[in-house]
Amino acid sequence: MSSIDINCDLGESFGQFIMGNDDAIFPHISSCNIACGFHGGDPLHIENTIKKALQYNVQIGAHPSYPDLAGFGRRKIVLSSEELKSSIKYQISAVKGMIESLGGELKYVKAHGALYNSILHNEKEAKVFLSAVKEINPNLAILGLAGSPFQQITQKFGFRYLREGFIDRRYQEDGSLTPRKEKGAVLETWEESLNQFISITQNGEVETANGKRVPIEVDSLCIHGDNPLAEKILKAIHQLGQPINIKSIQL
Amino acid sequence: MSSIDINCDLGESFGQFIMGNDDAIFPHISSCNIACGFHGGDPLHIENTIKKALQYNVQIGAHPSYPDLAGFGRRKIVLSSEELKSSIKYQISAVKGMIESLGGELKYVKAHGALYNSILHNEKEAKVFLSAVKEINPNLAILGLAGSPFQQITQKFGFRYLREGFIDRRYQEDGSLTPRKEKGAVLETWEESLNQFISITQNGEVETANGKRVPIEVDSLCIHGDNPLAEKILKAIHQLGQPINIKSIQL
Amino acid sequence: MSSIDINCDLGESFGQFIMGNDDAIFPHISSCNIACGFHGGDPLHIENTIKKALQYNVQIGAHPSYPDLAGFGRRKIVLSSEELKSSIKYQISAVKGMIESLGGELKYVKAHGALYNSILHNEKEAKVFLSAVKEINPNLAILGLAGSPFQQITQKFGFRYLREGFIDRRYQEDGSLTPRKEKGAVLETWEESLNQFISITQNGEVETANGKRVPIEVDSLCIHGDNPLAEKILKAIHQLGQPINIKSIQL
Amino acid sequence: MSSIDINCDLGESFGQFIMGNDDAIFPHISSCNIACGFHGGDPLHIENTIKKALQYNVQIGAHPSYPDLAGFGRRKIVLSSEELKSSIKYQISAVKGMIESLGGELKYVKAHGALYNSILHNEKEAKVFLSAVKEINPNLAILGLAGSPFQQITQKFGFRYLREGFIDRRYQEDGSLTPRKEKGAVLETWEESLNQFISITQNGEVETANGKRVPIEVDSLCIHGDNPLAEKILKAIHQLGQPINIKSIQL
Repeated sequence: MSSIDINCDLGESFGQFIMGNDDAIFPHISSCNIACGFHGGDPLHIENTIKKALQYNVQIGAHPSYPDLAGFGRRKIVLSSEELKSSIKYQISAVKGMIESLGGELKYVKAHGALYNSILHNEKEAKVFLSAVKEINPNLAILGLAGSPFQQITQKFGFRYLREGFIDRRYQEDGSLTPRKEKGAVLETWEESLNQFISITQNGEVETANGKRVPIEVDSLCIHGDNPLAEKILKAIHQLGQPINIKSIQL
Repeated sequence: MSSIDINCDLGESFGQFIMGNDDAIFPHISSCNIACGFHGGDPLHIENTIKKALQYNVQIGAHPSYPDLAGFGRRKIVLSSEELKSSIKYQISAVKGMIESLGGELKYVKAHGALYNSILHNEKEAKVFLSAVKEINPNLAILGLAGSPFQQITQKFGFRYLREGFIDRRYQEDGSLTPRKEKGAVLETWEESLNQFISITQNGEVETANGKRVPIEVDSLCIHGDNPLAEKILKAIHQLGQPINIKSIQL
Repeated sequence: MSSIDINCDLGESFGQFIMGNDDAIFPHISSCNIACGFHGGDPLHIENTIKKALQYNVQIGAHPSYPDLAGFGRRKIVLSSEELKSSIKYQISAVKGMIESLGGELKYVKAHGALYNSILHNEKEAKVFLSAVKEINPNLAILGLAGSPFQQITQKFGFRYLREGFIDRRYQEDGSLTPRKEKGAVLETWEESLNQFISITQNGEVETANGKRVPIEVDSLCIHGDNPLAEKILKAIHQLGQPINIKSIQL
Repeated sequence: MSSIDINCDLGESFGQFIMGNDDAIFPHISSCNIACGFHGGDPLHIENTIKKALQYNVQIGAHPSYPDLAGFGRRKIVLSSEELKSSIKYQISAVKGMIESLGGELKYVKAHGALYNSILHNEKEAKVFLSAVKEINPNLAILGLAGSPFQQITQKFGFRYLREGFIDRRYQEDGSLTPRKEKGAVLETWEESLNQFISITQNGEVETANGKRVPIEVDSLCIHGDNPLAEKILKAIHQLGQPINIKSIQL
């Protein structure tokens, strides 16, 4: 029986502004990417999310972003290399220290939103990002899009790369995601997401918008916490039972 | 020959907004309280300040604040105990992780501005603050006003308390500082500050606004980095030479 | 047949952080208090909310706050009188100009959250608030708690005072609201809110937590947009039909 | 005797973070571009700056920016057209309302920093910017770089275009400014700035870094308030006396 990791971006609420439904998601996932306060997440929401992750025995990653609360980290912001590097170190440190204060351990880092997308193809920014992580802890793993140029750069830096796929996002023929501003970027029904999960985990492929099938090999599958169908999709996945087991990657 | 620690709040610049003149101050002090981003200090300024502290062999403390960039941390903000605790843990963690990434070590914590003043007398907030620090690292020292009720609470928590005095602020008869919004809160000439330094370190007393002399026993003396006279005062202190030696406290 | 105004705080979403369900509320209210960006509301959400208000012919008020996005304006922040006054003028101006650019007119001002509560009893802050509004436009009306000391100060400033009651909040014996942090501050069922609406509009009284009945005379009734029952309550109110008519106050 | 307008970006301080030396600049200029709170300027600094402008009889423009306090508006931020338009309307409205509350009048708009540069060449953003201004008041003038493509678009929108030159910035051969991150972007001595002022106003040309002379025709000359030489340069300009008169453009 094979196993797969399911990760979700959590802890993104900010004060009275609630994002997603973390409590409904936690029982069904094996890894969580915790916001660091720059696109969402304030100290109290971050700490409470860490506590829940420890309680549910869910593996913890840091989820740094461009400094962009107003745009939820989905806007490209042009920072100098120095600014970007310090910004990422600050964010990871903040969350790492809070995790350790509660007896947990930070295991990996996943960039958020526009930063996630930028480093897939922008080699300079990718190197800045990886340098920042390395200075914090070179033993952290990096979670990023499966099959991207970023994967190779990450491995050259000596990091373990966790190849990520998406349960609820539409893929394009080149293996990239349909951009969020385009129609159909997020799969519309829970059945489509369930089918994409089955297709990736059992056949190693995804179906694109125009019906082509593209091979994809992943270590971890992401579901979006702000997807209102997330809980329903996750429950359906868990009801599949055999032959797939939802389990954290050993890091 | 006796020795005294001189500390200064540094790293408070935010982007293009420059606060103080850190470069002129660093050669003359033995400890620095580095802003954590909530009243001043952005990740790049924080990291650059840590680098300079390491280069000048200046002892490093974290300087957390209420979340109040617009008010430079000098406004009282009423947070819940949970919010305040997480906020302080986040700030200290961020700076601590960045220090460690550069090979340094965080040695102590000093609250900033309105938070510094609040915990002197507000026992509930003082305990929240100390609990936060304790969860990060119970071996950190706490820098706070000499002779305040906060000193006793801190010691009950098992922390080493560093008693702080001020070189450039006017004292009141009860040993507290003249509030910033009152006239004469900051000593006006560099000679007055020099005299206060001599009076504290050699006679163990300060002169209040109305000419009374009040006893004061300190481990560390603060000078304000945004005081335009700071560099001049510090140079004058160093020229005093014997019998006083500017030196970090062994922590 | 008598008529009553129903107002709601709207436009409080910030970027991807959605607050309340404005679209569901708009068809059922006669006045809206639009966030000004300091506790919630960003320029795009504000402008879209103004457009909807004009489309639904809903009267528009500005809803300024302490500068407190992280606390949704529910934290007391101690500003100087000058800071507070400028802050309120800035907020009202921003929303007023956007309304006028779309062909509408700003009719009244209602303070938000901790500022709303502070000016009920803090005469100094109340005067600062009213001076700010007066400098923008002395012909604006002021919406505030019915029967509070603030009502008298407002009238002395020459403003028309709109006495506000609450459909979904529990009252205390002295006519004030049960504070939000206490249990039962928000009525738990839609039937309770419907009954409070009927009791206020038909009998001129509310029932407190301990069963006492307190007289209350109002010009406008507030329902909270972030109350998940808001739409259900409003629909029930509209189904009451005779003898009450939901209508904006003529300003 | 001919006359020229001199403008300066003012009101950019934020809380305790002081930017530039507005008091030293005001006596020597004829127009001021007042920050709107998104790259610098908080409500109190904005209001105080408006008061000084009225006192010194200096013409007032609004100086909107990308929402980027951390980057002082010098970072490119990719906003949707709707976000950008609302953002600009919000900023101009806030400042316009405050000016009018003090008996003054907003006369023109000048974009700040990265937004200023972006709209010079990005036609789509230029149109969004101009649409925003038009909805606030189509009779406002637009201050922008002399001889840029933006000038033509602005005139097609029916706005009066005020052609801007720079006293203290180095020009390139194509008439654009040397980017800030390049060495020599800001003229290093006050004499160079004085010479550039004379060259533009008397000969209608500027000298580039490599010694070429480029023709330039302007309505208004900008000096940067955060240039530490600004006051010295302005005093030297005023001492030139005949044949040039510092005077606001009649709007």
